[in-house]
Amino acid sequence: MTDRMSIGIDLGGTTIKMAIVDRNGNIVDKWGIPTDTSNNGRNISQNIADSIKEKVENRGWKQNDIDGIGIGAPGFINMENGFIYHAVNVGWENYPLKDDLESKTGLKVVVENDANIAALGEMWKGAGKQASDLICITLGTGIGGGIISNGTILHGANGMAGEIGHITSIVEDGAPCNCGKTGCLETIASATGISRIATEGLEENPASMLHKKLNEKGNVSAEDVFTCAAEGDEWANKVIEIITHHLGLAIANMANVINPSRIVIGGGVSRAGDQLMDPLKKVFGQFALPRVQEGSDFAIASLGNDAGVIGSARLLFLKRND
Amino acid sequence: MTDRMSIGIDLGGTTIKMAIVDRNGNIVDKWGIPTDTSNNGRNISQNIADSIKEKVENRGWKQNDIDGIGIGAPGFINMENGFIYHAVNVGWENYPLKDDLESKTGLKVVVENDANIAALGEMWKGAGKQASDLICITLGTGIGGGIISNGTILHGANGMAGEIGHITSIVEDGAPCNCGKTGCLETIASATGISRIATEGLEENPASMLHKKLNEKGNVSAEDVFTCAAEGDEWANKVIEIITHHLGLAIANMANVINPSRIVIGGGVSRAGDQLMDPLKKVFGQFALPRVQEGSDFAIASLGNDAGVIGSARLLFLKRND
Repeated sequence: MTDRMSIGIDLGGTTIKMAIVDRNGNIVDKWGIPTDTSNNGRNISQNIADSIKEKVENRGWKQNDIDGIGIGAPGFINMENGFIYHAVNVGWENYPLKDDLESKTGLKVVVENDANIAALGEMWKGAGKQASDLICITLGTGIGGGIISNGTILHGANGMAGEIGHITSIVEDGAPCNCGKTGCLETIASATGISRIATEGLEENPASMLHKKLNEKGNVSAEDVFTCAAEGDEWANKVIEIITHHLGLAIANMANVINPSRIVIGGGVSRAGDQLMDPLKKVFGQFALPRVQEGSDFAIASLGNDAGVIGSARLLFLKRND
Repeated sequence: MTDRMSIGIDLGGTTIKMAIVDRNGNIVDKWGIPTDTSNNGRNISQNIADSIKEKVENRGWKQNDIDGIGIGAPGFINMENGFIYHAVNVGWENYPLKDDLESKTGLKVVVENDANIAALGEMWKGAGKQASDLICITLGTGIGGGIISNGTILHGANGMAGEIGHITSIVEDGAPCNCGKTGCLETIASATGISRIATEGLEENPASMLHKKLNEKGNVSAEDVFTCAAEGDEWANKVIEIITHHLGLAIANMANVINPSRIVIGGGVSRAGDQLMDPLKKVFGQFALPRVQEGSDFAIASLGNDAGVIGSARLLFLKRND
């Protein structure tokens, strides 16, 4: 084998996404295995090791044809030594992921926060276009954030950097957030937040088409909001106005501090495309400093579910090049 | 001379502060010369060169006993090549500061934004206590901000990173800011902002002691607000509550994104000490994520006017060590 390969892993609470990635960031193979959260997640490393061994052997490669493993993991992580303090979804508590995975695979392992690997992937091969100052925001069930500054991931003092979802958007009487605070951006501009706001306003908007969605399915999704808005529904359009106001303001405030050249929006909500991006850019322009605005572009994430595994693999090359 | 020395320069619109700084960050000598803004500031480099030459010769040193010059300059700067696009206070427009100063002094020159050198100085020798993730906020006539992440200054895509003063605090009908926006933090928590808020509320607070200050001097200063608050004045205390609310919220939101280990508050307003810091920490605690809060300490800047020259000198050592 002439090209060196790396394994990129994006570890979620349900599925472990895995890929073989070459040094140019191309996915050579990708697959997934279920996340075994039994036994406090202590089978996971062995499952990963077995799966890699099988893939590598099937290709007729040797273990040492692989440069190593980059893995994005959830929870609170010591990035220096790959130690997981706490990862609720997976069951880990004070677990030396890096050491365990290295001993089970015989490969070098680099661990990173899962919120950051998508940013790294998008920077390397996606909408980030190799921008060395990048903010990546994932609008999904929650809101994830990753910041790349001067080409490196911002970790902060204890690995918490990039928590844009927990910027306070509503100062008084905001909705409760999973983090324990109230009024966080995540309670507004995540898929869950959009659904909540849309549903809560239905009583005051009896003519809204969203009532029909609620009656049909028992709930109103973020997707419903964008669909009905496109058909001219007044309340659905108002919901988009509300959420892009808070999201645009938070991004502008963050951009005044980070001064990114590129702002990448990903996650399920970003599938709304221009319906989301057009009002968002308008609000951003209102609250970002003129020079900050001049220096930055918006883009929708382009790698979809592959961002994590590509970013994880990149992580390994980065560390090696340091 | 056994110890290598550097020149640290903090260039302001009125005075050029200069110091000889050793490799441990100790000031060996410091002095100032007036900023000659005539001729579009084109005499400044020669004035600096002459002043350094005189100091060095008086000490019996040779020019090459000096490692070089670190200089913090105002305006929009290309940090890579030390080119000043625009520095209103000094008169520079498209001016190659680094090249000009190097040719006039024969010394290596490193140029940095003036808002960042104070952060670097405080990190190195002051209240920053060598924290590698640091936010430094200067509450003066305006609000300056410098962010150090992973030991290096955050510049962003076009040198605008750290503009915490232009985070939008009041979304609707905020006071106009010098930047062209409205409702910026600078319109609230700078000395100017505090004075404005205190004065604007006097009509509705006829019993406030601040009326006396206004009658005596024709204005109400930020210092007056803290003095009267300490004496129990209700409106003065309310003003402190307002400004620490907005400042604490902005810092918490920024900290959720940057995750600093240390937050240093400097500038004239910081002389209020605990009167400022106690309510500020309380608001911060309300809006920062628990782990962000755990990981960070507040401190008042300790180097005063020396932060800039010390930080500038550090800049040179940093670049050389890169």
